[in-house]
Amino acid sequence: MNPLPSPVVHESWGQRVVFGSGTAREDVAAEVAGLGASRVLVIAADRERALAEDLGKDLPVVAVFSDVRPHVPAEVARAVRSAAREYAADLLLSVGGGSTTGTAKAAALTTGLPVLAVPTTYAGSEATPVWGLTEDGHKRTGVDPKVLPRVIVYDATLMLSLPARLSVTSGLNALAHCVDAWWAPRQNPISSALAVEGVRWLASSLQRIVADGQDVPARRDILFGTYLGAVAFAGAGSGLHHKVCHVLGGAYDLEHAALHSVVLPHVVGLNLPAAPDAARLLEAGLGSTADPLGALLDLYAKLEPPCSLRELGLAERELDRATDLVMAQVPDSNPRRVAHGEMRELLGRAYRGDTPVPVPVTGLRTNDPDFRRNDTEERTDD
Amino acid sequence: MNPLPSPVVHESWGQRVVFGSGTAREDVAAEVAGLGASRVLVIAADRERALAEDLGKDLPVVAVFSDVRPHVPAEVARAVRSAAREYAADLLLSVGGGSTTGTAKAAALTTGLPVLAVPTTYAGSEATPVWGLTEDGHKRTGVDPKVLPRVIVYDATLMLSLPARLSVTSGLNALAHCVDAWWAPRQNPISSALAVEGVRWLASSLQRIVADGQDVPARRDILFGTYLGAVAFAGAGSGLHHKVCHVLGGAYDLEHAALHSVVLPHVVGLNLPAAPDAARLLEAGLGSTADPLGALLDLYAKLEPPCSLRELGLAERELDRATDLVMAQVPDSNPRRVAHGEMRELLGRAYRGDTPVPVPVTGLRTNDPDFRRNDTEERTDD
Repeated sequence: MNPLPSPVVHESWGQRVVFGSGTAREDVAAEVAGLGASRVLVIAADRERALAEDLGKDLPVVAVFSDVRPHVPAEVARAVRSAAREYAADLLLSVGGGSTTGTAKAAALTTGLPVLAVPTTYAGSEATPVWGLTEDGHKRTGVDPKVLPRVIVYDATLMLSLPARLSVTSGLNALAHCVDAWWAPRQNPISSALAVEGVRWLASSLQRIVADGQDVPARRDILFGTYLGAVAFAGAGSGLHHKVCHVLGGAYDLEHAALHSVVLPHVVGLNLPAAPDAARLLEAGLGSTADPLGALLDLYAKLEPPCSLRELGLAERELDRATDLVMAQVPDSNPRRVAHGEMRELLGRAYRGDTPVPVPVTGLRTNDPDFRRNDTEERTDD
Repeated sequence: MNPLPSPVVHESWGQRVVFGSGTAREDVAAEVAGLGASRVLVIAADRERALAEDLGKDLPVVAVFSDVRPHVPAEVARAVRSAAREYAADLLLSVGGGSTTGTAKAAALTTGLPVLAVPTTYAGSEATPVWGLTEDGHKRTGVDPKVLPRVIVYDATLMLSLPARLSVTSGLNALAHCVDAWWAPRQNPISSALAVEGVRWLASSLQRIVADGQDVPARRDILFGTYLGAVAFAGAGSGLHHKVCHVLGGAYDLEHAALHSVVLPHVVGLNLPAAPDAARLLEAGLGSTADPLGALLDLYAKLEPPCSLRELGLAERELDRATDLVMAQVPDSNPRRVAHGEMRELLGRAYRGDTPVPVPVTGLRTNDPDFRRNDTEERTDD
């Protein structure tokens, strides 16, 4: 094996995580008691109201905040913070997907209150200390250990009502956290090893829920892979894949999880020829002995996610501008330099839904002597 | 792959870790600044004085505490705590092995002060929230996140003066953290995956330092494997191997790291026939396709650690009493029940230095339906 690169810096985050099946109510009650909380502010969108009420039955709930919106608008952040103060809450219980977790994080950021997260999608935000707030159309993101949920209670049965297509795209979004961790700015052998495990759990379980959406053990395995991917992502930061999706999602308001599904294999095709370590890790994760891009595409063929940006609503005339926007965000940690034409070609293929292909390395790799590495400590979410 | 067991509970701990080579002084200065500390109490035994002085040159050091003793006697804990108060320290900088880190933890436990650890052995204590204090011949241990060092600065060059024999036994102590994590009470797929990585880094690098003790990259790799093993151990708790060593070490005052080296392959021989998952993980870690016990013994043959309890000073007449003491400590999580005669046989073989052998499963395995599982939440260090 290769020796340890030098230097390695790794940050791990303190968190307790419980994986159960059909036990969310008891698990949440036990964890609320363990945290010593006596005034719980529940944060749950209307579509999660019944679940939140069920979970709250045995809890000292002081109020329910339901004004959950994507990307946490500043006025929502203000409202949830003043609810926390008004009701003298001592715990924030978020029940929902990434936007709900994000709303709880916004409250934790200024109040310092602990968050207990009960996720209902495979978003992964519950395992990262990244927060995001949107004001005047601009999303600010940052990292603060205060916003990391102290406890996550996962319950696979809460995912049974997630539609098949969203299960697949949300699961591939989780897979993207794993894969992108191999070439992200703070990539290190710890985050990489967790990401390999994440791929292993996700790849097999996603195939099983396509066959049977009510397969609870498979739903559990996806959650476990999701958690591992989010931890790897929290450790390693955003790689090229997340930069591409962040730019396209922000500029054109494309469906989050589906966007990740479409883009991932194209970025893999671009980076893998310049990243033998990542190729080896993807092989290990997918259980393939060679051709990891092919193995990824085989998995895609079984899952049948959306495969073009066109079907997500992107207009073809935007491809040149999108290329410019993405090129400004290519991380210095990327294993190869990316030429403008290469990115334009990648986005064109993704737009049309062409089969992702390995892109020969024509530019510099990061291990070439005159590649100037300038890994930033910037952290953003996706 | 097997589906996720149910339930899984995992606790991760927040910590920043830096792996460097020859950069301890700059790294420590940067981390002290990052923590915003202005009054540093250095904790270092006399044998580390020169190193501690070098590291402290650029730091706001207010005092050096050097009364470091094994197992942290209560009077040492009182002394270091009053030094922290007297000098109004805002950071504890420990420079040394497990006893030094333990002394800093004793101070952190009551003062809440952050610890920055600079390890000089492969003890691993710096990556766990476990503390220990000895009073009236009895060692109390406990878990408290307050004692977990906020930052670890590893520097491989600090290990170059570690004698070859101690490098091997200390490294095998680290390997034991990994292996024992596969059947410890809070074993879970996250701790297990980290432990596999730990074995991979340790197995190859220990062989390299036996060939050349000045091989700095190998020293770095050992430190990395040590850290992974300690994190796995902190997550999974003490398995049978650590219980055996804790009992023998406590009752007969045997050399810590050497004791772990001797005992480990015998416990592996006992448990592996009842633990197919652990067998698969050990195979993966050692890169062997079959016979993981044989692969472990091949590694031992290359490292030549001490191989008998006799040479560590245990008296043969103590073996019956030692068996009784160990049998009272067999964890309920162990993959097989252990008969008294099996443990007596194991200790006899370890005493004589006989080759460790696979022990056929005659009792119950934990997956037998009438095996009463009663995993405790108790945590002890080794």
